[in-house]
Amino acid sequence: MSKTNAGRFFEDYTLGQVIEHAVPRTVGEGERALYHALYPARHALYSSDVFAAQSGLEGSPIDDLAAFHVVFGKTVPDISLNAVANLGYAEGRWLLPVYPGDTLRAVSEVIGLKQNSNGKTGVVWVRTTGLNQMEEPVLSYVRWVMVRKGNLDAPAPETHVPELAGVIAPEDLMIPEGLDFTGYDFALAGEPHRWGDYAVGEKIDHVDGVTIEEAEHMLATRLWQNTAKVHFDATFRPDGQRLIYGGHIISMARALSFNGLANAQMIVGLNGGAHANPCFSGLTVKAWSEVLDKAETSAPGVGAVRLRLVAVSGGDAFTLKGEDGKYLPHVLLDLDYWALMPL
Amino acid sequence: MSKTNAGRFFEDYTLGQVIEHAVPRTVGEGERALYHALYPARHALYSSDVFAAQSGLEGSPIDDLAAFHVVFGKTVPDISLNAVANLGYAEGRWLLPVYPGDTLRAVSEVIGLKQNSNGKTGVVWVRTTGLNQMEEPVLSYVRWVMVRKGNLDAPAPETHVPELAGVIAPEDLMIPEGLDFTGYDFALAGEPHRWGDYAVGEKIDHVDGVTIEEAEHMLATRLWQNTAKVHFDATFRPDGQRLIYGGHIISMARALSFNGLANAQMIVGLNGGAHANPCFSGLTVKAWSEVLDKAETSAPGVGAVRLRLVAVSGGDAFTLKGEDGKYLPHVLLDLDYWALMPL
Amino acid sequence: MSKTNAGRFFEDYTLGQVIEHAVPRTVGEGERALYHALYPARHALYSSDVFAAQSGLEGSPIDDLAAFHVVFGKTVPDISLNAVANLGYAEGRWLLPVYPGDTLRAVSEVIGLKQNSNGKTGVVWVRTTGLNQMEEPVLSYVRWVMVRKGNLDAPAPETHVPELAGVIAPEDLMIPEGLDFTGYDFALAGEPHRWGDYAVGEKIDHVDGVTIEEAEHMLATRLWQNTAKVHFDATFRPDGQRLIYGGHIISMARALSFNGLANAQMIVGLNGGAHANPCFSGLTVKAWSEVLDKAETSAPGVGAVRLRLVAVSGGDAFTLKGEDGKYLPHVLLDLDYWALMPL
Repeated sequence: MSKTNAGRFFEDYTLGQVIEHAVPRTVGEGERALYHALYPARHALYSSDVFAAQSGLEGSPIDDLAAFHVVFGKTVPDISLNAVANLGYAEGRWLLPVYPGDTLRAVSEVIGLKQNSNGKTGVVWVRTTGLNQMEEPVLSYVRWVMVRKGNLDAPAPETHVPELAGVIAPEDLMIPEGLDFTGYDFALAGEPHRWGDYAVGEKIDHVDGVTIEEAEHMLATRLWQNTAKVHFDATFRPDGQRLIYGGHIISMARALSFNGLANAQMIVGLNGGAHANPCFSGLTVKAWSEVLDKAETSAPGVGAVRLRLVAVSGGDAFTLKGEDGKYLPHVLLDLDYWALMPL
Repeated sequence: MSKTNAGRFFEDYTLGQVIEHAVPRTVGEGERALYHALYPARHALYSSDVFAAQSGLEGSPIDDLAAFHVVFGKTVPDISLNAVANLGYAEGRWLLPVYPGDTLRAVSEVIGLKQNSNGKTGVVWVRTTGLNQMEEPVLSYVRWVMVRKGNLDAPAPETHVPELAGVIAPEDLMIPEGLDFTGYDFALAGEPHRWGDYAVGEKIDHVDGVTIEEAEHMLATRLWQNTAKVHFDATFRPDGQRLIYGGHIISMARALSFNGLANAQMIVGLNGGAHANPCFSGLTVKAWSEVLDKAETSAPGVGAVRLRLVAVSGGDAFTLKGEDGKYLPHVLLDLDYWALMPL
Repeated sequence: MSKTNAGRFFEDYTLGQVIEHAVPRTVGEGERALYHALYPARHALYSSDVFAAQSGLEGSPIDDLAAFHVVFGKTVPDISLNAVANLGYAEGRWLLPVYPGDTLRAVSEVIGLKQNSNGKTGVVWVRTTGLNQMEEPVLSYVRWVMVRKGNLDAPAPETHVPELAGVIAPEDLMIPEGLDFTGYDFALAGEPHRWGDYAVGEKIDHVDGVTIEEAEHMLATRLWQNTAKVHFDATFRPDGQRLIYGGHIISMARALSFNGLANAQMIVGLNGGAHANPCFSGLTVKAWSEVLDKAETSAPGVGAVRLRLVAVSGGDAFTLKGEDGKYLPHVLLDLDYWALMPL
């Protein structure tokens, strides 16, 4: 028994601790094809090497969210195996495109700790960095989780709640070297709407819906080597259902958002996000977006747009929270991100 | 709302109109592997780079039907999002093999229009061409669909029904450059039956069956970036079922036909086809073929065989239509195609 | 009808007969990605090209079991289409790593025959060899199956039961050329336990479980071009269930065994194996292992460990057989293999 990983408990984390996550992963054309099979992904930059080259990149990168999932998956055995809840994300930045053939690994630093007043759980904040085979950081984000204590008698650590930016400043977004949208082909990309056509406050109903199947979310979650039991083992929960990995809903909603945001090509920042309600198979996921902000960038023809992406299953159009300030039951995801769009 | 694609209605099409379809797609080894996972595909030319090279090609191409699906998928947002029915195919020709790394896009020309007498729908004929990154046509076919009118007051266009060949003449079939079956290895291909062994009128029951799952047809349909709602959204139809993309049945039946037609290696012509009845998950698909014609070709060791491929779910062997001339309820697909086979 | 493969019956086999199996298969990055989507596979050598290179290989090979499945799949139409039962494996040795781009085919020799006393079935032993495009053997194993007689009047062949080694001698295991674990990174591999930390007789409960879905086992089985009807056709069995390919359970259990055996990197020998009970969708598969033996090897830093891998669905921990010597009903698989591990 002692040879298996029981996961870390709250008392196993210390401030400043650096955790090198296991199992580096080479990603390639197979992962790209599977991403297109698992999600209705159509953003042209991730579909066509030619379109990507015409945009100044060396080829079509692995989808930004696929890169995120691979890095996230590496952290699960060390961070969230005993997590009660995935509480939030902040300060997420994509730093370099990931190309087929790249090998990713992940490192996390514990940047915050706070034991809960019940003495049974605590909140752990980690800043995770994804690195490629050149040891270059490709992705960095903060997430915080509520973790069970293994030994209730373990002393509470000194509370340290990190100060996190609510929004990444546009000037801190990393634009991939060479990216150039001045020759952007809107017809091939699928929609005529450019950066200037979107107004802050505008809301877009993405219309399409996808009904979720057990086989599909498990294929996806395994692909990212995310091993949390609740996603795979129907005997783990009393109700016999498998909780769907929150990242599956992020990717599904982002892919659905093509219809209305086809030109929000690259994700470069993750300002925050909440998995508002759990998702289970049989639900039909739809999505809507709200334009939260817009900014210029230094890259030719490239603007940045800050978007709220909401995944829902049922409910009234554009509804999010009740009068009590809590997410309504039909809301699955509320994500706040920066994307790059042609001017 | 106005930013999303509502699809085109009948009055949005004009004769001679050319539509450049969006989202080019690079296909590769991942798509090839997924094709083998989704369908019981075993034709040696598409399974082995070595077998393909020994047949004079540069390597194993992407399955002909996968190339078809990718091109077809591109046309859906522009042609069939508001389609009531996919009525038929004609004059389909594969013009160049598609190899891993190729990037495909699609262009359609409206070649026929006919408003129905009810004034609510009309038939649109389009000739679609798939192009690779060299702008070389790889595939061309005509299909016609019944489309709803968006504005019932829109005037009816002048009726123009295109003249279409019922069958592609053998001399118009494109044989891939270099294709040579003189050194064909029948043992490795899986069956000893050569072109000369098949007789016009011969029928073959392909024996094997596959029961269809929701997760599988959705993975397949998404892989081809076909976004028609009815394939994915269980809430779209009153009965809660997801209509299966007709192309999924084409690929399933073609793969099943290996057992008896293992040497019908390459599909080079699509003379016609009807999705006789809709297919839903839980049905078990089987297939039978009929040899409709045979022809010689200019390539060494290569003959052409014209085949009817019928997909069924239940029903008596080799039954197709009732006394009223309509397809029997168990018939899912009736396809008429040309394939290349060793002499 | 006569053009389809009805499979071979017991009387169709003769001692010394060599069967060249059809449909060579090029495996690549797509198959690797699908393997990670289908199984919770995390062994670092098969996940990261960098980790594999640091271990002295040219890159990350195709998973050893994926290579096995491809070779096995080729044999199904000739060996087990009319099999009543897959009785056992022996003398399995992996001889060369399979790399993306390799093309595999399979050849079997009939090495044993024994008609059963009922006169209706017989046992066929075959030694199957997988070959790559250089005609180098990559894998060799013996399996025996019970096959129906097609013609009950066919004379019984002379009985010949081959002498098979119960266990492959450690000195007969093939270590991939260049393999070197002296610089092994245990942190990246995921666990600190080295060869010296495992004791003969030690048992490990791998903790995690995966609930099996129809779509997933069919995707896997098709990927290996295994066409046995019972895996795909819900109408084939009276109870409407699809029997899951035994190899799916082998791969699932092996992947689950990462948790406790993360450093049992490469499978090099298959001493024996029994599919103790059939598996159907809806069951939740878990696994445990027992260390049966240990041996040194000639490669730097590389030890060999002989493991029993047991897949179960329910049942008490570490239980295997009842007092009658028969497998308990919850046992799905009992596999005996050699793996390579860092010293």
